[in-house]
Amino acid sequence: MRFGILGTGVVGKTIAARLDGMGHEVMVGTRNPEDTMARTEPDQYGSPPFSAWQHEHQGVRLGAFSEAAAHGEMVVNATSGAVSLEALEMAGEDNLNGKLLIDVSNPLDFSRGMPPTLWVSNTDSLGERIQRRFPEAKVVKTLHTMNAYLMVDPTQLAEADHSVFVSGDDPEAKAEVTELLRSFGWTDIIDLGDITTARGTEMVMPIWLRLYGALQEPIFNFKIVR
Amino acid sequence: MRFGILGTGVVGKTIAARLDGMGHEVMVGTRNPEDTMARTEPDQYGSPPFSAWQHEHQGVRLGAFSEAAAHGEMVVNATSGAVSLEALEMAGEDNLNGKLLIDVSNPLDFSRGMPPTLWVSNTDSLGERIQRRFPEAKVVKTLHTMNAYLMVDPTQLAEADHSVFVSGDDPEAKAEVTELLRSFGWTDIIDLGDITTARGTEMVMPIWLRLYGALQEPIFNFKIVR
Repeated sequence: MRFGILGTGVVGKTIAARLDGMGHEVMVGTRNPEDTMARTEPDQYGSPPFSAWQHEHQGVRLGAFSEAAAHGEMVVNATSGAVSLEALEMAGEDNLNGKLLIDVSNPLDFSRGMPPTLWVSNTDSLGERIQRRFPEAKVVKTLHTMNAYLMVDPTQLAEADHSVFVSGDDPEAKAEVTELLRSFGWTDIIDLGDITTARGTEMVMPIWLRLYGALQEPIFNFKIVR
Repeated sequence: MRFGILGTGVVGKTIAARLDGMGHEVMVGTRNPEDTMARTEPDQYGSPPFSAWQHEHQGVRLGAFSEAAAHGEMVVNATSGAVSLEALEMAGEDNLNGKLLIDVSNPLDFSRGMPPTLWVSNTDSLGERIQRRFPEAKVVKTLHTMNAYLMVDPTQLAEADHSVFVSGDDPEAKAEVTELLRSFGWTDIIDLGDITTARGTEMVMPIWLRLYGALQEPIFNFKIVR
């Protein structure tokens, strides 16, 4: 399948690499491809520049947000939550309409210092804002409650005996995402309901960040024991 | 040990019954003991009136909030989050100073309809508000991320192979609470850090409520797989 992955950060690259490795046709989208390719320094998290990464993943193409969105039969929003709505505007409504839009972003606000707070929560969510802004896209919120490496390879922890949540208004879109998650190795996939349930999963980020601080290790996840 | 349990709802009664069964000296606190004892109808959740419950738990005494707080060497805030600060005022600062105050409440706001939202979150928490208002109490936030029956008997689910979180500023108070949790059967007790980490655990309530809706069953809990 053709995937457009919006965002060249760790999350976008990790998802792109996984999908490429599974034989999908992947284009990663960025604001300005020339700028992205021109970078030679590691990013603020110490990750190698995109050009070095792409050298290891030559099947993955890079394009503008709009090109990646047009390329994808499914589009993944892996941009930083602070700029997701802006990035999706650049991707273009026409390139998103009718498509499954997997939203893995978190509305983190780093402007108040660490740990970050959420710039939307409680009575609304970023997933809902995206769905409202792009009513013809089929937004499914998932995978944003864990580290990027676990998203695409849950079997590296406890033989995948932990949980991933799915929120969205379109049952068929959620069924497609569930299939994709299974192909990543997920076995415990919990459909929470419509896109408003993204409030709950986005509000998991504060405890995730505190657990990261307490455990000193990002490879952990929530399992819903029942 | 002597415990003062503030609140006569399901949470307060469940904790009181457990502590009584373990041989502790328990007094439950309420706004007006005569009113509480005079009720003959089930509460809004269908639970029997307090007098019927106390008939089954005759070792548990009932008193005003201030009497229960004065009685307790440890005090548990099991009131509804909406009225917790008011109830603690009635309990009296002098009766709380220097004591361990276990806060199991959630700041749920039912005024906007279902599911409830949080009336404090993200940049503050009810646990922090209680600690700020009663700076001489040793507030430990715990147990509020699950159903009341699991709080005091985790072994009924998956042999207690799931997690409980502890937040608080006083390491000794957290160590005492950890001992109490172990006596309930808890084995995976995660110290998240100071009382500000209660933001993260209180913000778990929205996903808990959605999981309750999806699973149609309140006996579930989060396990931090790592």
